Amino acid sequence: MGSHMVEMMRPLQPDDFLTQTHEVLDFIADYYRNIENYPVLSQVKPGYLRKSIPDSAPYSSETIEAILHDISNDIIPGLTHWQSPNFFAYYQANASTPGFLGEMLCTGFNVVGFSWITSPAATELESIVMDWMGKMLKLPSAFLFSGNEGGGGVLHGSTCEAAVCTMAAARDRALKKIGWDNISKLVVYASDQTHSTFRKVAKIIGIKPSNFRPLPTSAATGFALSPDVVHMAMKDDVALGLVPMYLCATVGTTGCGAVDPIEGLGLVANEYGVWLHVDAAYAGSACICPEFRHYLDGVELVDSFSLNPHKWLLTNMDCCCLWVKSPSSLQDSLSCNAEYLSNNASETKAVIDYKDWQIALSRRFRAIKLWVVIRRFGVAGLREHLQSDIMMAEHFEGLVGADPRFEVVVPRRFSLVCFRLKPKVEGANGNELNKKLLEAINSTGRAFLVHTLIGDKYVLRFAIGGTLTELGHINATWKLIQEKAHLVEAL
Amino acid sequence: MGSHMVEMMRPLQPDDFLTQTHEVLDFIADYYRNIENYPVLSQVKPGYLRKSIPDSAPYSSETIEAILHDISNDIIPGLTHWQSPNFFAYYQANASTPGFLGEMLCTGFNVVGFSWITSPAATELESIVMDWMGKMLKLPSAFLFSGNEGGGGVLHGSTCEAAVCTMAAARDRALKKIGWDNISKLVVYASDQTHSTFRKVAKIIGIKPSNFRPLPTSAATGFALSPDVVHMAMKDDVALGLVPMYLCATVGTTGCGAVDPIEGLGLVANEYGVWLHVDAAYAGSACICPEFRHYLDGVELVDSFSLNPHKWLLTNMDCCCLWVKSPSSLQDSLSCNAEYLSNNASETKAVIDYKDWQIALSRRFRAIKLWVVIRRFGVAGLREHLQSDIMMAEHFEGLVGADPRFEVVVPRRFSLVCFRLKPKVEGANGNELNKKLLEAINSTGRAFLVHTLIGDKYVLRFAIGGTLTELGHINATWKLIQEKAHLVEAL
Repeated sequence: MGSHMVEMMRPLQPDDFLTQTHEVLDFIADYYRNIENYPVLSQVKPGYLRKSIPDSAPYSSETIEAILHDISNDIIPGLTHWQSPNFFAYYQANASTPGFLGEMLCTGFNVVGFSWITSPAATELESIVMDWMGKMLKLPSAFLFSGNEGGGGVLHGSTCEAAVCTMAAARDRALKKIGWDNISKLVVYASDQTHSTFRKVAKIIGIKPSNFRPLPTSAATGFALSPDVVHMAMKDDVALGLVPMYLCATVGTTGCGAVDPIEGLGLVANEYGVWLHVDAAYAGSACICPEFRHYLDGVELVDSFSLNPHKWLLTNMDCCCLWVKSPSSLQDSLSCNAEYLSNNASETKAVIDYKDWQIALSRRFRAIKLWVVIRRFGVAGLREHLQSDIMMAEHFEGLVGADPRFEVVVPRRFSLVCFRLKPKVEGANGNELNKKLLEAINSTGRAFLVHTLIGDKYVLRFAIGGTLTELGHINATWKLIQEKAHLVEAL
Repeated sequence: MGSHMVEMMRPLQPDDFLTQTHEVLDFIADYYRNIENYPVLSQVKPGYLRKSIPDSAPYSSETIEAILHDISNDIIPGLTHWQSPNFFAYYQANASTPGFLGEMLCTGFNVVGFSWITSPAATELESIVMDWMGKMLKLPSAFLFSGNEGGGGVLHGSTCEAAVCTMAAARDRALKKIGWDNISKLVVYASDQTHSTFRKVAKIIGIKPSNFRPLPTSAATGFALSPDVVHMAMKDDVALGLVPMYLCATVGTTGCGAVDPIEGLGLVANEYGVWLHVDAAYAGSACICPEFRHYLDGVELVDSFSLNPHKWLLTNMDCCCLWVKSPSSLQDSLSCNAEYLSNNASETKAVIDYKDWQIALSRRFRAIKLWVVIRRFGVAGLREHLQSDIMMAEHFEGLVGADPRFEVVVPRRFSLVCFRLKPKVEGANGNELNKKLLEAINSTGRAFLVHTLIGDKYVLRFAIGGTLTELGHINATWKLIQEKAHLVEAL
C-alpha cells in the first residue's frame, strides 16, 4: 500500500499516466476484439451488481489490475453492448477510434471553456467546426458565423438540452410581448411522432402540460406532420385566447424515421410568429450526402436546427450540434453573469462566451472531438459510412420483402426498417405474435432490437448504424429472425 | 489517400485503435511534461484561430500527425491551462490519471444507459457509487439507496443541471397545490453570494424573474445567508400572496467560500414547505475529511444536495453528484415515456431508469469514472489530496498576512484565499490598484487568478486545488504577486 500512496500523491505524473493508460487501452482493444461473444442485450437480473461490489468505498488505494478484473467479471456482463455489430435497437451511438482520440484530448486538456478567456481555442474551434458542419449540410448562411448575419452554432450534450435552450428563448421572446403573468397561455406544438423529450422539455421550461399539443399523424402522410393540421391547431388556440409559441419538426422520427415537411411547417410557423425548431438528431447526419439533402429543404424558414453526431456520425457520446439564427435570443434567456466571470474580452463583446448559449456554466472541450472525427474521416469517409449503412438497410428491407410471412410497415427512408410478422389468424392484430418474436430474438443475446407502435401495430425496429456492423451481421440476424418467427408461429 | 480510406472503413479496428491512441497519449503526456512552459492564461487575440484553420471541412481523410501538429501550433497557444500548477482562477477542475482512465472506459464502452435495460451495470454502478460517496460524506440514510427510505443519488454533468431538475421538481410539487395557472406566484430564494447559475435556472424553469430573491449577506455573518433574513423574506412574500417554493443554500460560495448555515435554513424552509437545496459544488468534497464534516450539519433537513467531483475530487470533467430524499418528485417532473422505451424491466418498477432523474434522455457511463477515481485513490488518498491543498492555502494566507501591504479580506475556510493590496492613499478604495495588480500578474502568463467583489471591495481570489500544484508554485506565485504589487504601487 505504501508505494501506492506515494504514486497517488503524484496523480498526473506523465510516466505513470502512460503506463496506466496503456494498460486500460489494451483492455478496451480486447473488448472490441471479443465484443461479438457477449450477449448484445445484457442478461443480468435487477440488483445483480450489489452482490459483487462492496457497499462502501475502499479506504486505501487499489490497483488497476484489481479494477480491470472487476470490470471483466462484474461490469461487462451487465452491459448492453451498444458497440456490438448486432445492436439494432433505438438509434445507434456509433463510436470510432477518431471519436475516442478526440475525447482523450478533451479529457487530457480538461479545460472549462465557459467564457472565451477560459480557453479561446475551445470557443473558436467550436465556432469553426459548427461552420464546417453547417456547410457540410448546406445550411443557409443565416446559421453560419461566416455568414455575418448574426447566426451561428454551439455544441450541446443532447437534443434535450438544445430543446430546453431554444424553447426557453422562444418563451421569453413571446413573454416580452404578453408579460410573464401570461406564461400559462403559451402553447407548444409537435406531432404524435415527435420525440417524447419535447413534451418533457415543455414542462421543464414552465409550459402548462395541457398546452402541449402532440398533433396526429397517419399513414397517409408517412407519419409526417401536416402543415394544415398545425395551422388549424394554432388557429383554434388563438381563438381560445392562447398564444402559439414553439413548433418542433422532425427529420427522421425515432419511432419510424418519418420526415416532417420543413418548408410547409415553416410557412405556418412564420405566419403565427412561432419559433420553429427542427430536430434531426438521427437523420440529420445523412443530409451531408447530396442525395438526402432535400429533406432539409425549407430550413431557411426555421429558427433553430439540431442533430447529434453522437448518433450516426462516428462521434462518441456526447455531441449535439445546435444552430440558431438568433443567438441573441438564447443569450437573453441564458446569460449568467457574476463579478468573478467578468473580464475585458467579454466586455468588448468581440468574443463569444458559450456559457450564454447553454444550460450549464461549465462545459467540456467537445469541439476538439468533432474536429478530429471530421478530419480523420474527411467528408468523403463520413458519407461513405452513412451510405454503406443505408445500403445495408435497403438490403435488409429486401430480405423482409422477399419473405411472404413478413411486411415492411412504413416506407424506409434512412437506415431504419420497421417490419413485422403478418398475423396468420383472420382478425388478429398480430401484436402478441410480434411481441413474442421480439422477446425470442433478444433473449438469444445474438441481436438486440426494440419495438414501437405504428398506429395500433406492434412493429419491430431494425436500426442499422453500428460502427462494426457489416453485411454478414445483417444476414445472420435476418436468419435468426426467420428461425424465431418459425418458432413463435408454431406456438 | 487510398490507404486512409481503407483504414477509415474499419473505424474501430483494434490494432489501429491501439496504434492511434498510443500516439495521442504520448502527445498528452508531453503536454503535461511541458505544461509549466505555457502561459497559464492564453495570450491570443480574439479571432486568432480563423487565421490558421481552413473555413471548410476537408474532403479526404487527414493523418493523426497532421492533426497533432495543428494542435501544437494552433490549439495549445489558445488554451488557458486549467491543469497548470499555476492556475489559481475560479475553482479548479482537477484532472488525474484515474479520472482519465475512467473517462477512457466510459468512452470505449460508449453505452447509453438511459434505462436500466440499456446497460444494467451503468445504472447499478451509479447507484452503488452514489451510496459510496454519500457514506464518505456521512449523509443521512434518507439520501442513500441502502437506507431504503426512498432516497438516492444520480450523476449529472453540472450543478446547473442538478438545479434545473430539483427546482422543476419543487415547482411541480408546489403547483400540485396551487395549480399551473399560479406559476407566476412562485418564489425562489438564494443569497447575493449564491452562484449566478441559480438565477438563470429559476428563469429557465419558468419562475418570473422578479420572483428570484438574492437576499443580502454581510461581513457580519462571513457572507453567509441568515435564517432570519430568509424567514422575513418568506413572510413578506406570503403576505403579498406569493408562494415560497425553493431555497438554495451554499457550502463554499464561488465568490469567497462562504458557508450558509444549513440547519437554521432547513428549519425555516421546513416551516414554509419550501424545497431546500444545498449547493456544495466546490467545498462539498472537503467534507469527506472528518474535520470539515461539520459544515454539513443539518443536512438531514434538506431535500437535495449536490457537489462536483470534477472540481476538487480529481475527477475529470464532467461529474456532479446529486442526492435527493424524494426521487419520486424528480420522476414526477422529468419522466419521459415512449413505446420504444418501454420494456419489461421498467414495467416491474424494480429498477431505476435514470432518464427520469435528469434533463436529457441520453447519458454517458459517468459512474465508472468516479468509481475508478475512488478505488485508485482510496478515501485516504482523496483526503490527503484535499488536506494538502488546504495546508497550501493556509501557508499562502500566512504569506499574505506577513506582508503589511496586503490584507486577507474574508476568513479562509477551505483552499480559497481572498486578499488585496491595501490602499495607501487615505480615502481611496483600492479597487483600481488591485485591478491593475491582477492584470499585471495575469499578463505575465506565470499565474492566473480572477477577482471578485466582496461588498464594494475588488478582491483577488487565490484558489488552490490544481493536481500539479505544489508548495513551490505557491511560493513562486507569491513572489510574483509581491513584485507586481511593488510595481503597481509605484505607478
